[in-house]
Amino acid sequence: MRYKLIIAYDGAGYHGWQVQPNGISIQEILIEKLEMILQYPIRLIGSGRTDAGVHALGQTAHFDSDKSIDCKKLLHSLNAVLPKDIRILSLEEVIETFHAQYSATSKVYRYHLYLRPILSPFRKKWVWHVPFLKDLDAMREASGYFLGKHDFTAFANEAHVGVAAHDPIRTLSRLDWIMDQEELILEFEADGFLYKMVRNIVGTLVECGSKKLEPKKIIEILASKDRRQAGQAAPPQGLVLVRVSY
Amino acid sequence: MRYKLIIAYDGAGYHGWQVQPNGISIQEILIEKLEMILQYPIRLIGSGRTDAGVHALGQTAHFDSDKSIDCKKLLHSLNAVLPKDIRILSLEEVIETFHAQYSATSKVYRYHLYLRPILSPFRKKWVWHVPFLKDLDAMREASGYFLGKHDFTAFANEAHVGVAAHDPIRTLSRLDWIMDQEELILEFEADGFLYKMVRNIVGTLVECGSKKLEPKKIIEILASKDRRQAGQAAPPQGLVLVRVSY
Repeated sequence: MRYKLIIAYDGAGYHGWQVQPNGISIQEILIEKLEMILQYPIRLIGSGRTDAGVHALGQTAHFDSDKSIDCKKLLHSLNAVLPKDIRILSLEEVIETFHAQYSATSKVYRYHLYLRPILSPFRKKWVWHVPFLKDLDAMREASGYFLGKHDFTAFANEAHVGVAAHDPIRTLSRLDWIMDQEELILEFEADGFLYKMVRNIVGTLVECGSKKLEPKKIIEILASKDRRQAGQAAPPQGLVLVRVSY
Repeated sequence: MRYKLIIAYDGAGYHGWQVQPNGISIQEILIEKLEMILQYPIRLIGSGRTDAGVHALGQTAHFDSDKSIDCKKLLHSLNAVLPKDIRILSLEEVIETFHAQYSATSKVYRYHLYLRPILSPFRKKWVWHVPFLKDLDAMREASGYFLGKHDFTAFANEAHVGVAAHDPIRTLSRLDWIMDQEELILEFEADGFLYKMVRNIVGTLVECGSKKLEPKKIIEILASKDRRQAGQAAPPQGLVLVRVSY
């Protein structure tokens, strides 16, 4: 039987989603707690990794089990033993052809920009503080150029060793602007995202908003397929994986 | 000259507002940084203390200075040297008869209750998780009995040694219910609050909401002036001092 998890986490204390040698990952903790409860080895596949410091409201993952599982009970047991900054929001049996990564049809990310001069002590771990933004109109114009189907190579970092090279064509179906008091939330939806794509786009948008880059240049940068043409990646703590659709 | 500060802080990392021997307080850090910048001794008077773990969106304080101060510059310098979980929101000269504690005419506190079964990892430091609440109607009825002018002795803890005994009569002018997604925010406004009064009221309301206490009992408990009759104090992390009016 195959089981699907939806997971929320505060990424501040972890070295990202994926198991790795130099720090505690969220995947590693989930596997440890699952194996502790179920008492047999588990292979847990996520929808994709999130980097160190990146958060999730709705990361997804799946695992297989030879024995049938009482989902409600396991959900409860997991949340009882997991650290409070990782929560399982749902756990359900799915068809065996379901795959957390390959069955995904779209993902939604949000990036939180904090605009006011003085950063709220309650938001410091979850935003990029950009009090220097002068030209939101330029940023909005720039946002438009990312929409649609593009080769996003110029906005993708090279993935780590061991991760297969991807087709760099993605379709960004939404890039919504949500003003929530002192924050500007950029909400991205696409059929998939290349490595660091959201953070690289946000970094470049902020360059437009700081009058360091002409919005129209985005068209050239996309066409160049050259990572060095785009802006620096926005910091990880402003990024949240909101949901994965299947 | 007298200067007034408005201060926001995340109380999680501090032993409350007031200078004390067994931990770092917010008042202590503010005095240290003010003296570091101004290079002379400062006496900083807050509107009142907040306990360990309690937060503030708008705590106020005042201090005197023989030398005239460039408020805009000092605000900037202070925020540059203060830890990021303490922010000065405003700094202005006030008349010398202003007193952060004695001139206050009302205070607003909010208490955040998190109602859903699974606590969001993003809210865990700022709410009391009460998934066991069954009867919000009873809680709402109970809220009503606190409104108006009462002797709140039954809902006040004894203050620490050295703090003068207060007149226990207070007028609670508002106890608003704000539903914000998965949170119930209780907003209190009064001419003043006794020590631990908000947390003791919230603890008692939650007893009503858990069917451990009849709402009508609140009237008797208030009349008893006996602290042992009321419920346990709600935990500190759900409490925020929102503003002090003068």
